[in-house]
Amino acid sequence: MAKDSGIKLREDDYSQWYLDVIREGKLADYSPVKGCMVLRPHGFALWDAMKCDLDRRFKETGHVNAYFPMFIPMSFLSKEAEHVEGFAKECAVITHHRLRSTTDENGKVSVEVDPHAKLEEPLIVRPTSETIIWHMYGKWIDSHRDLPLLINQWANVVRWELKTRPFLRTTEFLWQEGHTAHAYKDEAVEEAERMLHVYTDFARDFLAIPVVPGLKSAGERFAGAVETYTIEAMMQNGWALQSGTSHFLGQNFAKAFDVTFQSKEGKRELVWATSWGVSTRLVGAVIMTHSDDVGLVLPPTMAPVQVVIIPIWRKDHEKEVVIEFADKMNEQLKAAGIRVKVDDRDSIKPGAKYWEWERKGVCLRMEVGPRDVKGGSAFSKKRTGGDKFGIPLEGAAETVRGILDDMQAELLAKATELRDSRTHQVDTYAEFKTQLKEKGGWYKVFWHADEAAEDQIKTETKATIRCYPIGEQELPEGAVCFYSGKPATHLAIFARAY
Amino acid sequence: MAKDSGIKLREDDYSQWYLDVIREGKLADYSPVKGCMVLRPHGFALWDAMKCDLDRRFKETGHVNAYFPMFIPMSFLSKEAEHVEGFAKECAVITHHRLRSTTDENGKVSVEVDPHAKLEEPLIVRPTSETIIWHMYGKWIDSHRDLPLLINQWANVVRWELKTRPFLRTTEFLWQEGHTAHAYKDEAVEEAERMLHVYTDFARDFLAIPVVPGLKSAGERFAGAVETYTIEAMMQNGWALQSGTSHFLGQNFAKAFDVTFQSKEGKRELVWATSWGVSTRLVGAVIMTHSDDVGLVLPPTMAPVQVVIIPIWRKDHEKEVVIEFADKMNEQLKAAGIRVKVDDRDSIKPGAKYWEWERKGVCLRMEVGPRDVKGGSAFSKKRTGGDKFGIPLEGAAETVRGILDDMQAELLAKATELRDSRTHQVDTYAEFKTQLKEKGGWYKVFWHADEAAEDQIKTETKATIRCYPIGEQELPEGAVCFYSGKPATHLAIFARAY
Repeated sequence: MAKDSGIKLREDDYSQWYLDVIREGKLADYSPVKGCMVLRPHGFALWDAMKCDLDRRFKETGHVNAYFPMFIPMSFLSKEAEHVEGFAKECAVITHHRLRSTTDENGKVSVEVDPHAKLEEPLIVRPTSETIIWHMYGKWIDSHRDLPLLINQWANVVRWELKTRPFLRTTEFLWQEGHTAHAYKDEAVEEAERMLHVYTDFARDFLAIPVVPGLKSAGERFAGAVETYTIEAMMQNGWALQSGTSHFLGQNFAKAFDVTFQSKEGKRELVWATSWGVSTRLVGAVIMTHSDDVGLVLPPTMAPVQVVIIPIWRKDHEKEVVIEFADKMNEQLKAAGIRVKVDDRDSIKPGAKYWEWERKGVCLRMEVGPRDVKGGSAFSKKRTGGDKFGIPLEGAAETVRGILDDMQAELLAKATELRDSRTHQVDTYAEFKTQLKEKGGWYKVFWHADEAAEDQIKTETKATIRCYPIGEQELPEGAVCFYSGKPATHLAIFARAY
Repeated sequence: MAKDSGIKLREDDYSQWYLDVIREGKLADYSPVKGCMVLRPHGFALWDAMKCDLDRRFKETGHVNAYFPMFIPMSFLSKEAEHVEGFAKECAVITHHRLRSTTDENGKVSVEVDPHAKLEEPLIVRPTSETIIWHMYGKWIDSHRDLPLLINQWANVVRWELKTRPFLRTTEFLWQEGHTAHAYKDEAVEEAERMLHVYTDFARDFLAIPVVPGLKSAGERFAGAVETYTIEAMMQNGWALQSGTSHFLGQNFAKAFDVTFQSKEGKRELVWATSWGVSTRLVGAVIMTHSDDVGLVLPPTMAPVQVVIIPIWRKDHEKEVVIEFADKMNEQLKAAGIRVKVDDRDSIKPGAKYWEWERKGVCLRMEVGPRDVKGGSAFSKKRTGGDKFGIPLEGAAETVRGILDDMQAELLAKATELRDSRTHQVDTYAEFKTQLKEKGGWYKVFWHADEAAEDQIKTETKATIRCYPIGEQELPEGAVCFYSGKPATHLAIFARAY
């Protein structure tokens, strides 16, 4: 099966399987620009669905959208010392603002950079927008009445990566970045935590991904943050994928850009900040969490097409009958808010259609042949497996809604079971190394925070601290670090990660 | 009034009035990057509303969204000879992919372009995406079964402009660009015309702008197009604003990127193309079309807040009563799908609130004081003028819906009247010059197509051919060009334009 399908089996080559699923599902394609991908319509629709649901959640929590320039003066980056360390090495730099074209004797046109059009100060393409946004906040914030300022931006950003992988790590990617400004420290911390919970809920309820929310270790913090919160998802190979982050930035950017406000007590004070973001990487998370050896599997919440109806006929008089039935089914499901499509192309055979729609992750397929019409029901198959079964036209919307809801729950349950069954507890570093090598997965350990030790573990095992999971930080008395034997400061999850 | 308001009168300084309306309405702000603006939340919301409505129209006409990289290899631009001429001079050029940072003896961090990180081939930031998209179409199109390909992209683009003006012309701007591929010439022409009509309908029904759809003269065509269609809007000063374009690209990009398909007859043939776009410039069009000397006026269809309810109280026991009434009103209107907001901030006086919301273009203001509550109605004022009047709580939703619908129609009617009353017909160039100088506006003339003459007229009067309006090209027998006296080939609209 997998051999003919053009999709590698997961157990044979997980990395290649991922790329195959993307290609066969027509989700993305490589572009002529190194590290940049094209989001094909089906892949873009997945991001758009996420965007739509997230945007609603952001608005419900009081945020508004805005748009800031994607170019940032080079000098801005150096205003926050840690920030520049984090991003200087991966910036796309604009140095000129014009090309000049020449035509040779054969009429062939060529272009080159116009040396007379050099910018006085180079610009970088935003790798993230803290600097330019805090420059603007300096203009907009003057009084406690201007706070809090709760702004989100949907945008493209660029980080020049050497090793790229579709969705997971690309030079340009799409994301949202929330940037909020607050009068009080507590309020900013609360905001950073609130958005972590928004992401956690969204991942669970919309993506059917049971992420673990937690705090990053000092070494894994965002460049410029005081604390970084993260949601971590387990992929089917047992690796972790950092799927979203929320940062409490303290007053670092307010200091760097001199953003103060007049407090209610009449004093000038520095503003407190957060930022938080998720990106098209989440599309990769969904693919890796739910798909199988046949191709893409999508949670019904985010499937652009939830149900495909495929009319099947041989003779012309049959065609009329099956199309009529398919249309009735289509109308009923559509009226119930189900995303449904009738695939009545006559240039392609039914088998090829099944093949195509399976690879695109359509949740439910309905086959409608002359015999099905007579029986008054559509011969159906769930993308997640099981035998084919009839769905009567009468009451179909309700039946389908039930199937989709169940599928959503099943996918979340399956992913949760995988995560839990592959999350292990170990007491010693020796155990950890052996088990990680043998069976992979995540490891919950008692840990004494220590950046040097963290680096050493990474060098030896390629595993890193994914997070200090929230709600699990009340350590038993006497808990000691699995690595150093020192008194434990945290419960940490160690794992290989993308 | 206008003197205190911080907004110039239109008749005194139309250009400054425009900038004042934007500043006072908090629509946009200047950024630290020359020519780039920040879309503040209220301004961004206007674009978002347009995007939402347009996206629906695109989907209804069979299009899907995708996303292509914003970086384009420099050499791509030169593949289509006219295209490079049109865009080479205004490209942002990426030449390096890394900065390096240094820290001086005082701990001060600075950054510079890393000379070791020069790109082999410079990249440009897309000024428009025909080249990279047609490169990808070459990979995706092989058979007539792959056609038509109807893709749209929502994106940011960059055109390095010397003179910029918020919304109307900025270095970076947001837009959508449709790019379609067809097996047949007729089908591509039809598509270009279909999208022109989509834009025309959208402008009329959503923006309340009575644009004139037409064909561009050869000199004003998009670089690389065979024909360019345009919608032209008249601003309140009588100038024209090109508000959207749709291009029939012939086979120019298919040739440049070698994109062919196997026809039903089994032959390899070149693919036909269209592209079409509108941008954040439309926000400028709305501002300039509907606003007045007090500030922003918005058509109800696109107002982020249609109704603001302002509770007014002096004593605490009054507060409770007015807030209760305001909340009831709010709930009723919200339930009817009206975008309503209760402004119950107690740090700001009612007068300041009126001031603020007028400048933000809220369609209807409701004042709710203790006496209003007693009378069971809200004391209301339309943004477009007229006396204050009561709106009873009972049946308020219906009343307000009616007011908003009327306002939408009034704004369109007013703009149509302006356009028609300031569109003149002249027979001679002398008349044209005199009248244009005296009273501005648009001029419908018989015209013999001639690029040199067009240039000459532009030099002498600054007026250009805005379009050859559709539906007005059946010329009377013997019609002669107003400029050259030669037999007329078109009816043209000449005007000053942004």
